[in-house]
Amino acid sequence: MTRSDARIAVSTVIFSLRRDRPDDRARVVLPLVRRTRDPFADLWALPGGWLDPAEELEAAASRTLAETTGLAPSYLEQLYAFGAVDRSPTRVVSIVYWALLRADDVDAQVAAHARADDAPENVRWFDAAVLPRLAFDHNEIVDYALWRLRNKVGYSRIAHGLLPEAFTLAELREVYEAILDRRLDPANFRRQVESSDTLIPTDRFRTGSHRPARLYRYNRAVELADRGPLRSAPLPAALS
Amino acid sequence: MTRSDARIAVSTVIFSLRRDRPDDRARVVLPLVRRTRDPFADLWALPGGWLDPAEELEAAASRTLAETTGLAPSYLEQLYAFGAVDRSPTRVVSIVYWALLRADDVDAQVAAHARADDAPENVRWFDAAVLPRLAFDHNEIVDYALWRLRNKVGYSRIAHGLLPEAFTLAELREVYEAILDRRLDPANFRRQVESSDTLIPTDRFRTGSHRPARLYRYNRAVELADRGPLRSAPLPAALS
Repeated sequence: MTRSDARIAVSTVIFSLRRDRPDDRARVVLPLVRRTRDPFADLWALPGGWLDPAEELEAAASRTLAETTGLAPSYLEQLYAFGAVDRSPTRVVSIVYWALLRADDVDAQVAAHARADDAPENVRWFDAAVLPRLAFDHNEIVDYALWRLRNKVGYSRIAHGLLPEAFTLAELREVYEAILDRRLDPANFRRQVESSDTLIPTDRFRTGSHRPARLYRYNRAVELADRGPLRSAPLPAALS
Repeated sequence: MTRSDARIAVSTVIFSLRRDRPDDRARVVLPLVRRTRDPFADLWALPGGWLDPAEELEAAASRTLAETTGLAPSYLEQLYAFGAVDRSPTRVVSIVYWALLRADDVDAQVAAHARADDAPENVRWFDAAVLPRLAFDHNEIVDYALWRLRNKVGYSRIAHGLLPEAFTLAELREVYEAILDRRLDPANFRRQVESSDTLIPTDRFRTGSHRPARLYRYNRAVELADRGPLRSAPLPAALS
């Protein structure tokens, strides 16, 4: 056995939804950080950093995400370990996490940093479907994270990580449409979610320019995402 | 950024099926290696070793599996990175792979090593459902790998990794029963697989003490396991 000289980095793909105007279709967006040094100086990269030897992997993902973007996610899960020999000039294995954050939480967190005058630098939000050439293998990593998100939204209540506590069926459908990048038939969608046990109707309604729409909440008895024997791992407080 | 002093190890959970007598129900089994030094000397552990800095992660999994057990799997996929601070006296992040190997291939590979007089030492096969206390967090890792196997057998043709090229529906059902650890109704099972596009009937039959049973093979147009954008990763030659 030889001692490994590979270094361990931790990065996070954190998705949110954004629409520029109220009637626009929501898009999946993610924050990237412009690199200020080589390798890949000036290219955009996933938020991340080195693993501290005394730090849990998930804690390192949260810390480096906060240090580089100022964001705290509502959902965080390990994605994959990317370790191709040629992905960096030195050998770096990146343990990558993926995370979700509601649009209103993004706005609140960004505003709080602006008030405190500690807004992170070199951060910009990008449309996940239209990325420039990123540093390292980060384009491949985002593609894989999007694939995981699309798969997972089909069999778990993962969309909750992008929704407020109570939401209308139209708002839920818009999250699915943004993630799957296609239109869903409203009547079929309503039938499917109403026949599942994941949603609980509340006695509140969203009122506004349209006719009042009932608000639903997620059934907490259904796991946000089935992580099997790993489900005992601590979830961020926002979801507990 | 501080330089990480954590070391990277690679381990593999490799499952096969075994029955002691022809009429026994098949059980999920895996090989473990007895540790000859501290930490956890004399306890059983997953086959593995240190990552060589010049080596791809998947190659390191194959190499350390071959070095410790003499086995070459028919399917290999990354499972998870286990990196809890207290899982080892020094900080070690283990990139864990999971693998499948047909029972007849296990027998052939073990016999070849015996003939060459290079049989690996300190290896023993265990029933996955009845494990002793293993070294490190390896009990937790095996539990998670079993959970992944059970999930994946439901929506992919992963069972192929445990079957010969051609097989009867009864043999396929036995693989599912062993993995899921429960009996399946033969008529329902036949209906389900015949209505899917994953199996192709051959014009050959298995003959023996029972009435002849048609042999099937997997439809190679259906992915063994959907790995999304990662599907371009090289698969072992046995499956190409």
